[in-house]
Amino acid sequence: MTRYEHLAKLLAERINQGLYLCGERLPSVRALSKEHGVSISTVQQAYYLLEEQRLITPQPRSGYFVTPHKLGHPLPALTRPVQQPVDVTQWDEVLAMLSTRQEKGLFRLGYGRPDLTQPTLKPLWKIITRIGQQQDAAMLDYDDIYGVYELREQIARLAIDSGCQLMPEEIVITNGCQEALSVSVRAVCQPGDIVAVESPAYHGIMQTLRGFGVKVIEIPTDSQTGISLEALELALEQWPIKAAIVVPNCNNPLGFIMPQARKRALLSLAQRFNIAIIEDDVYGELAWQYPRPCTIKSFDQEGRVLLCSSFSKTLAPGLRVGWVSPGRYLDRVLHMKYIVTGATVQHTQLAVAEFVRQGFYHAHLRRMRQCYQRSLDVFTACVLQHFPCGVCVTRPQGGYLLWIELPETVDTTWLDKQMRKHRIQIAVGSMFSASGKYDNCLRLNYGLPFTEQTEEALKLLGKMIEEAMEASLSEQAVR
Amino acid sequence: MTRYEHLAKLLAERINQGLYLCGERLPSVRALSKEHGVSISTVQQAYYLLEEQRLITPQPRSGYFVTPHKLGHPLPALTRPVQQPVDVTQWDEVLAMLSTRQEKGLFRLGYGRPDLTQPTLKPLWKIITRIGQQQDAAMLDYDDIYGVYELREQIARLAIDSGCQLMPEEIVITNGCQEALSVSVRAVCQPGDIVAVESPAYHGIMQTLRGFGVKVIEIPTDSQTGISLEALELALEQWPIKAAIVVPNCNNPLGFIMPQARKRALLSLAQRFNIAIIEDDVYGELAWQYPRPCTIKSFDQEGRVLLCSSFSKTLAPGLRVGWVSPGRYLDRVLHMKYIVTGATVQHTQLAVAEFVRQGFYHAHLRRMRQCYQRSLDVFTACVLQHFPCGVCVTRPQGGYLLWIELPETVDTTWLDKQMRKHRIQIAVGSMFSASGKYDNCLRLNYGLPFTEQTEEALKLLGKMIEEAMEASLSEQAVR
Repeated sequence: MTRYEHLAKLLAERINQGLYLCGERLPSVRALSKEHGVSISTVQQAYYLLEEQRLITPQPRSGYFVTPHKLGHPLPALTRPVQQPVDVTQWDEVLAMLSTRQEKGLFRLGYGRPDLTQPTLKPLWKIITRIGQQQDAAMLDYDDIYGVYELREQIARLAIDSGCQLMPEEIVITNGCQEALSVSVRAVCQPGDIVAVESPAYHGIMQTLRGFGVKVIEIPTDSQTGISLEALELALEQWPIKAAIVVPNCNNPLGFIMPQARKRALLSLAQRFNIAIIEDDVYGELAWQYPRPCTIKSFDQEGRVLLCSSFSKTLAPGLRVGWVSPGRYLDRVLHMKYIVTGATVQHTQLAVAEFVRQGFYHAHLRRMRQCYQRSLDVFTACVLQHFPCGVCVTRPQGGYLLWIELPETVDTTWLDKQMRKHRIQIAVGSMFSASGKYDNCLRLNYGLPFTEQTEEALKLLGKMIEEAMEASLSEQAVR
Repeated sequence: MTRYEHLAKLLAERINQGLYLCGERLPSVRALSKEHGVSISTVQQAYYLLEEQRLITPQPRSGYFVTPHKLGHPLPALTRPVQQPVDVTQWDEVLAMLSTRQEKGLFRLGYGRPDLTQPTLKPLWKIITRIGQQQDAAMLDYDDIYGVYELREQIARLAIDSGCQLMPEEIVITNGCQEALSVSVRAVCQPGDIVAVESPAYHGIMQTLRGFGVKVIEIPTDSQTGISLEALELALEQWPIKAAIVVPNCNNPLGFIMPQARKRALLSLAQRFNIAIIEDDVYGELAWQYPRPCTIKSFDQEGRVLLCSSFSKTLAPGLRVGWVSPGRYLDRVLHMKYIVTGATVQHTQLAVAEFVRQGFYHAHLRRMRQCYQRSLDVFTACVLQHFPCGVCVTRPQGGYLLWIELPETVDTTWLDKQMRKHRIQIAVGSMFSASGKYDNCLRLNYGLPFTEQTEEALKLLGKMIEEAMEASLSEQAVR
């Protein structure tokens, strides 16, 4: 840890312990420099870091202040899904959402895609064009079954930030994280097997399990600390579960980062019951905290964890560049990769490798984290302002997805239908359950540039929710 | 049919009926023009067409002659595989071949990849670069689950040549034909089901079936007319077969084109036994004959055929642009596409669409057909010259793959090992059987530019085969 990181950590601890109160002015740069015997620039860097973490806020000509906790809204409680393996349904809902991908003029408020308008993406276009100009015939040929080596080198470098020591030979490139998840599930499961998932869980994972005839047991999950290890242990004792699939960093849809101790405990559980862990880290690099949170894979000595990720959520989904580090399941994963697609486009792989190598990726990540974090505050405030009382909203620790729990009487499928009439799309909660639970929940993307249109959409959404609540109240009154 | 096509057809019939004999001089352009009351240029175009079909050969200042049948070599007989469903093995052999993809300096004589050195590919690079320069942010976003619309339009247009009336809405873009096959298998089969395949059959199909836990029944196949309908009917009567997977046009590895009547008969069989047909047409546009052979799909009124294809074998495999027209299985195919990759790279899709739209694709196809057909003659002559007597060689009707049957005593796995020492790779026959048959067979790619290196490689291969035969003879003598 460098000097300024050390200092930042110390100050963060003081803030968390309440030594500096919310809204209070922090010591001047000069004073701190004297107090800790470090240079002025070290203090400035430390303050810059804390600012990035939104712990402190600069005020022109006045110095730094402890950021007040503006958003003291109620959080969703620990979920209580059905406690037995079930078949996944809800494909129709997912397909309905997918069909809107190319719908012109639709405001897609629920879709999990990054902001593609930032200037830090510019160098990517230049790199893509330059690679095309090279006219290298090898690029038109079949790719290595593992994927382009240069890219695997860069991914191995990036993995160090998450605590992982990976070799390029342990990484297999895939067509987005979806293929990584798909080949991983097939590598560790047979049809009829049971897999444990967080609840709610990302619909891409759910549908993958459904497609391969795997049953799902949904485990209660806390919106701030992740999957309940106690409930998972109970399930492992009761059912012959083959694997657990988790999104421990900037979870989709809940936004939590599993505390490090719980990540370790989850791995221990997996060891004790001899199951595989499929870890989806696709939003991990978008965590507010610095350094970025570690992966479960980073504690794994036995190759039990299949770490899946991609550049779709951090950079651009259209590149279709994902990867998996499958540990002991490498052979099976290679076989599955061969049969599902055989190879990956080299052009986009080479472009991403170059974008990372030249440092553009880190600069882009830095900017996107700031954008998303700023958006989160504005977006959540807007939600709380326009939505009726009693709505629970998550407090994401990274990424750009917000999970909102409405009163039980509100059916978000109905809500989605109403919103579509106004050319606005939301992600209905039932897609995130194997068995159609969370019908009163919805997922929104707060990461797209916040405009008047966004505010209007949230206002309208709030109005519709109120209508739904009133309708159900008058219905009850009639009964 | 245009005038010149009509005339060409008439002349082809006369040649086939023996009215013009092998090596005989054809009427002059002027004489034919008078005889049929057509213009000089119409006759010239007709002769050009027949030349393309290798039926006639021009000789400078002497006119056109009927091409002599130079290659009267023995053909492989109808295959006789095991007549019961089996699990697919041979993954290790396939993986060993895949691992050579990036091996520098290896002469890959057995790999199914097109010639990527022709100048008709040049416009593709320009298009790729131009699309990059447009910097359209939509291209970085998720693709339509069906794939890029412009490309589906062009594919629908191309399909007319194979007798198919397809709408863009009936086409789903995939990551190469491999994903098309993979999603098709999953759309029509459950693990434990039985699927009928040609024997030998393409290893990508075999491994896909293995990966999904589907059993395979290999049907005897003729190297000139394709799968034995009689044997298939017997198998259908005996086993609960779910689907048949065939490569009826320019078959991989046998090179045949199934006669039209047999294609119709196969579809009737499928109707009678209510099975699906997965049709792989990936080499169909590389048939010598003009117009290109029709697909089974073109006769299909009930949506029973899932037509799979790609631009990998005709244009460039590195683009990873394939497609499937799944008929009545559209919903299932969309689901499977969603879970295996979710989306396809837009850049390469747009590039292919533009390449086709501007007519570059047809020009490229024309050139590649000529190159491959010329190569076939030279390559086969070289094989017959350097290989021992008694070797059977296929007579492909398109594509660029040659199947060679050696005496039963020769083990091509041993042969491959020996050749690898000389940095030469061949495709061993056992990969093309579910159960490791065809160990005495091998597949070669004659489509790459024929050089001195090619001749040297074939010479060495011939020598090794002779050695293997002698070794087995002396072994027998010792016994």
